[in-house]
Amino acid sequence: MSILVVGSVAIDSVETPKQTRERVLGGSAVHFSYAASFFSPVQLVGVVGDDFPDEHLVLLRKRNIDLAGLQVIAGGKTFHWKGKYLPNMNDRETLEVHLNVFGDFEPQVPEPFRRATIVFLANGAPMVQRKVLEQVVGPKLVVADTMDLWIRETHDELLALIKRIDGIVLNDSEAKLLTQEENLVQAGKRVLAMGPKFVIIKKGEHGAMFFSAHETYVMPAFPTETVVDPTGAGDSFAGGIMGYLAEQDNFEPATLKRALAYGVLIASFTVEDFSLDRLLTIGRPDIDVRLEAYQKMLSF
Amino acid sequence: MSILVVGSVAIDSVETPKQTRERVLGGSAVHFSYAASFFSPVQLVGVVGDDFPDEHLVLLRKRNIDLAGLQVIAGGKTFHWKGKYLPNMNDRETLEVHLNVFGDFEPQVPEPFRRATIVFLANGAPMVQRKVLEQVVGPKLVVADTMDLWIRETHDELLALIKRIDGIVLNDSEAKLLTQEENLVQAGKRVLAMGPKFVIIKKGEHGAMFFSAHETYVMPAFPTETVVDPTGAGDSFAGGIMGYLAEQDNFEPATLKRALAYGVLIASFTVEDFSLDRLLTIGRPDIDVRLEAYQKMLSF
Repeated sequence: MSILVVGSVAIDSVETPKQTRERVLGGSAVHFSYAASFFSPVQLVGVVGDDFPDEHLVLLRKRNIDLAGLQVIAGGKTFHWKGKYLPNMNDRETLEVHLNVFGDFEPQVPEPFRRATIVFLANGAPMVQRKVLEQVVGPKLVVADTMDLWIRETHDELLALIKRIDGIVLNDSEAKLLTQEENLVQAGKRVLAMGPKFVIIKKGEHGAMFFSAHETYVMPAFPTETVVDPTGAGDSFAGGIMGYLAEQDNFEPATLKRALAYGVLIASFTVEDFSLDRLLTIGRPDIDVRLEAYQKMLSF
Repeated sequence: MSILVVGSVAIDSVETPKQTRERVLGGSAVHFSYAASFFSPVQLVGVVGDDFPDEHLVLLRKRNIDLAGLQVIAGGKTFHWKGKYLPNMNDRETLEVHLNVFGDFEPQVPEPFRRATIVFLANGAPMVQRKVLEQVVGPKLVVADTMDLWIRETHDELLALIKRIDGIVLNDSEAKLLTQEENLVQAGKRVLAMGPKFVIIKKGEHGAMFFSAHETYVMPAFPTETVVDPTGAGDSFAGGIMGYLAEQDNFEPATLKRALAYGVLIASFTVEDFSLDRLLTIGRPDIDVRLEAYQKMLSF
């Protein structure tokens, strides 16, 4: 199966209590793609300026990430985010956002990508996410991410989008905001009632929850001693899920559940270093070793 | 095996966003004992005033909770706590605390209780907890709870106590405070380095973490849609753990892990109503049904 992801490709500057990294590779589509590429080829649609370093393109292409849908705007600058993590490494402040070319992003799905089986709409304006849906033909699974900004400012458009997709991934505070419900189990069920077939609530260091008509379950995060930089954890979580689903070529409940576990584990690697640095050092066998430890941890 | 618990017996008044309950049965030793009594007889040491309703004594005795160590102070008033939960049902404000007879509590372990196999020192001043240790003879397992107040104000006494016990149960913010470490995995390991054989960190709605020299694991909370009143969840969690250990008559790692699961599940019932109300409606088979669902939830 093929996976299409549409989202941001960015340059991030990250401050943590212990270290700082300037201008490293980031963006939702990048984190998603790299994580998914452990399992399956990926087709990426996004936009960068001509300041975007070639080495990043080389890195992604080597992973079987097709960049035919990556627009490079001549004279434009790449989306740049600068953020600072608080000592708890969970909360963060945005210090600077320069949307640059991403501010006018009009996703153009290349002809060969339009029949992708799985589509992931990374965090973006619901109107932009909808434009992607209008360009794809008969996807079997469409999943979207969102954020507080869209819940607050484009509420109706977001609800309209949610009705049209199969799954939604959002974090705990976003689920509470969207449903005005503090209990996460109830919040998840309310999002489910908005139309999708499944809802995944990300809880950061506490793991994730899954909701469908027939199942509600929780998976804890893999206990990680070394949290260097949580940036991209949510997107690599989604990438692990979708990548595994594409590899398995089915969306059965048991496959989805195992996919969620892979998502949790990929995210546990992602946070162990800045940008993609930790993922660059591992292969599929490392993920499977951690999966085995995770399964053992949850058996009693 | 016999379990001895020393802690508070209280009257609680609880406000939640949806409901209020005045003067219901509470206290750490009560919640612990009732939860443990699903698995094993319990010996309780505590103190109340002569205002303490007889019906509560009857209720506890019916559960095979031996109250020979419950001092009743003539003319005294029972410890009364009044609190209010914030809409997230996790954070709470204390509105009133009347320690009353609990303020001068001098635990007296009756002769027949002194050879208890398992001892649980519910939250209390480390000096008071130590007095219990001085009265018991050759317990096989001693576990203590604590709170931010003791970490801040009786730090050295607490550290001295931690060195002498087998296990400690504390919540996430207490673990961070005690170790000055924000990462919970590192915090757990640092508490372990203070001397006990195992450390359990409670994460409220997110479950619990376990640390020993050879194991680190996390268990999520059972997803609970109906959170009416979280008061006592932590104590009933500990009660479920200790009760199951007493029933199984061993402290092997596999038994401890299953005990932790029982603790998580008893707590998931506790929060479904005020005081002991939800636990009053269930029996061991209900807990085992939930255990099976929990195991299924964590299998993939």
